[in-house]
Amino acid sequence: MQGTRHRVVIVGAGFGGLYAAKALRGRRDLEVTIVDRRNFHLFQPLLYQVATGVLSPANIAAPVRAVLKRQRNVRTLLGEVTGLDPERRRLNLREGALEYDSLILAPGSLTSYFGNDGWEQHAPGLKSVEDATRIRARILSAFEQAELEQVPEKIRRLLTFVVAGGGPTGVELAGAIAEIARHTLTHEFRTITPADSRILLVQGGERLLPGYPPELSANAQHSLEKLGVEILLNHKAVDVSEQGVLVRSDAGAEQFVDSANVLWAAGVRANPLGAALREATGCELDRSGRVIVEPDCSIAGHPDIFVVGDMAHCDDGEGRPLPGVAQVAMQQAAFAARRITERLAGRGQGMPRFRYRDRGSMATIGRASAVAAAGRMRMKGLVGWLAWLFIHLMYIVEYDNRVLVLFQWCWYYLTWNRSARLITNPEE
Amino acid sequence: MQGTRHRVVIVGAGFGGLYAAKALRGRRDLEVTIVDRRNFHLFQPLLYQVATGVLSPANIAAPVRAVLKRQRNVRTLLGEVTGLDPERRRLNLREGALEYDSLILAPGSLTSYFGNDGWEQHAPGLKSVEDATRIRARILSAFEQAELEQVPEKIRRLLTFVVAGGGPTGVELAGAIAEIARHTLTHEFRTITPADSRILLVQGGERLLPGYPPELSANAQHSLEKLGVEILLNHKAVDVSEQGVLVRSDAGAEQFVDSANVLWAAGVRANPLGAALREATGCELDRSGRVIVEPDCSIAGHPDIFVVGDMAHCDDGEGRPLPGVAQVAMQQAAFAARRITERLAGRGQGMPRFRYRDRGSMATIGRASAVAAAGRMRMKGLVGWLAWLFIHLMYIVEYDNRVLVLFQWCWYYLTWNRSARLITNPEE
Repeated sequence: MQGTRHRVVIVGAGFGGLYAAKALRGRRDLEVTIVDRRNFHLFQPLLYQVATGVLSPANIAAPVRAVLKRQRNVRTLLGEVTGLDPERRRLNLREGALEYDSLILAPGSLTSYFGNDGWEQHAPGLKSVEDATRIRARILSAFEQAELEQVPEKIRRLLTFVVAGGGPTGVELAGAIAEIARHTLTHEFRTITPADSRILLVQGGERLLPGYPPELSANAQHSLEKLGVEILLNHKAVDVSEQGVLVRSDAGAEQFVDSANVLWAAGVRANPLGAALREATGCELDRSGRVIVEPDCSIAGHPDIFVVGDMAHCDDGEGRPLPGVAQVAMQQAAFAARRITERLAGRGQGMPRFRYRDRGSMATIGRASAVAAAGRMRMKGLVGWLAWLFIHLMYIVEYDNRVLVLFQWCWYYLTWNRSARLITNPEE
Repeated sequence: MQGTRHRVVIVGAGFGGLYAAKALRGRRDLEVTIVDRRNFHLFQPLLYQVATGVLSPANIAAPVRAVLKRQRNVRTLLGEVTGLDPERRRLNLREGALEYDSLILAPGSLTSYFGNDGWEQHAPGLKSVEDATRIRARILSAFEQAELEQVPEKIRRLLTFVVAGGGPTGVELAGAIAEIARHTLTHEFRTITPADSRILLVQGGERLLPGYPPELSANAQHSLEKLGVEILLNHKAVDVSEQGVLVRSDAGAEQFVDSANVLWAAGVRANPLGAALREATGCELDRSGRVIVEPDCSIAGHPDIFVVGDMAHCDDGEGRPLPGVAQVAMQQAAFAARRITERLAGRGQGMPRFRYRDRGSMATIGRASAVAAAGRMRMKGLVGWLAWLFIHLMYIVEYDNRVLVLFQWCWYYLTWNRSARLITNPEE
């Protein structure tokens, strides 16, 4: 029986991969294998809350095996993809090889330093659980070190936080750091005054949240400024060192900001699997390394290979690539899964086009403050925050995590206390 | 004003140090400084639940600053003690020096490999949050690797778990691993059968839980055996390598157990600060490096220096040292704090004797199964477990953590699902 089933291999258990597997639920004619380097699905939109001490990593992670255990046609493997052989339809893992009939690649993206990889050690990005606990340790250690320090300039440097990048992650990080400094740490220090911290948000474009409606960008900026965040628009971080960050305006003016805490939310690049795919299939990549896919998310000349999510450069129908957000990945995954089952049924001979249904975008600024856009609706402040809260809870995969997250949000709402404030793995 | 206050410096924010600081609450004539290498108080009795995926580290950790923020006479410092100068009453930190009038040392203990430090990499101990997440990663990775493995002997080795040491930590770890294998992972794997795992508990003495009443030792053994744990009494681990562990019986018979998962709960040694203290004051240490203290927990010739908790060798009045448990540390801390305030008040000239009030001991075997002894009371099974649950919740320092822990225990009770099942920091 096993030999006759159509083998679908899925790479990645993020929003793309996990939802592809789920979309193939109940299909006994399929043998689905999902491979990821990690043993858990990570709810990345809330990673900044781990980095800022509200939630624990496990609250936003769900073991892939546990999520898919009732789906008997799925096998979960912890493995690392090293390449593929499209002629023999084999995916190479460090742990061995997998044969496939259809392949769905959804490996996601990484932080990009635009070629300056040396910046990473001074300005961590936020993509993994380890990134989040590293940033959390860095933020908390800065206050601890400042409390022990005597020299005013050194204290100043320790209490200066610079977030590079004014997209959702940058906005959320800056807002959360401001709340830590102004609210959470009140009364906890005897020498320094955490509320005196300087929080700087550096954004290359002319407004925050560039993908959002302009009025929400303005609202986010206003809300952050009320929290005491300094916002530098039309500025870029052009050099990062142990001492701080060099910022340049579009007009060419430069300033060096002394800071022990530079956080990087300024760019992403595609997973290096894209390059391996180009080598194996001759597919085209865009400037950030994403695979330029056909209208149906497959790659040119290989209708059995689909690329979905952050690694796909998928035209939105107007010549621009779709954004790297969870909704795009999930919808593409469902689309690719349907393509596979339709072809198995002898249908779907043409090349249908994937169409993205934009359900909206949202970002939190802080406690009881968020911006959200859905169709023509615009929500701000408490209303936006409640919408944000509800939507995010809905998409967290496991029920118990939903309850834990909700409780911790309520607790934070009532007390400003962020209880997941651990400095772990301090050797870093 | 500050110069006239009596300066109390506390080293360590475990049960000893934190309760010493709390015992000095409200004393405006004191200037208390608490120093720890970590920024959180760790509820160590539940660390095995982090190592086995029920709880997250933050659930059993409380930021020291947050706990003490309302206690205005306390300053919290994140620092590492490097030594002390008792003549000048200075404590040296890597970050500088602290002057004291009274000193309370409560730095705790470390895992002991009885001189075979090379075993540590193959058989991690369980003392820190990092230890716990490392053990968690090792247990979970073993099942993941076994699912990818073809060779039966290798699968067998991956699914063999050996816990060295049959005290509370060993008993709790072995029981939890058995439940993971027999219950939590059911239906999650397609190739291996986690329930076939072999779990071995190696105990040097003639019964488990040697400090407990014999009938509870017997009950713990019986309950573990029902969970499928093999128990080797009167056996010791005499060598540990990457391949597994060599076990020798008291009669001298040896067997090598192939295992990818050897966990170490067989011994503790005192914090190395004990040796620094001996050098500085000439105090005596016992075989495991603990400081032999005077009846009032001070050290000979230095009535201003107290040692409490796991680093103290404190006679129980019958020639044996008190056990290294939280209750002893907390009671000694309160006693030392009282000695300091009494002397300040001009009282307490003699040498009163610290008397430990044994409130009982308890250990969980698994879901709805624990043993507990308090005075002449003996509790087992569900009753013991409810007592255990209530007592442990009571002593968790922060309210929100109590709620989170209780919810996760209920969740586990109902579903067998351990949701904090993350393999993190996989480079290790």
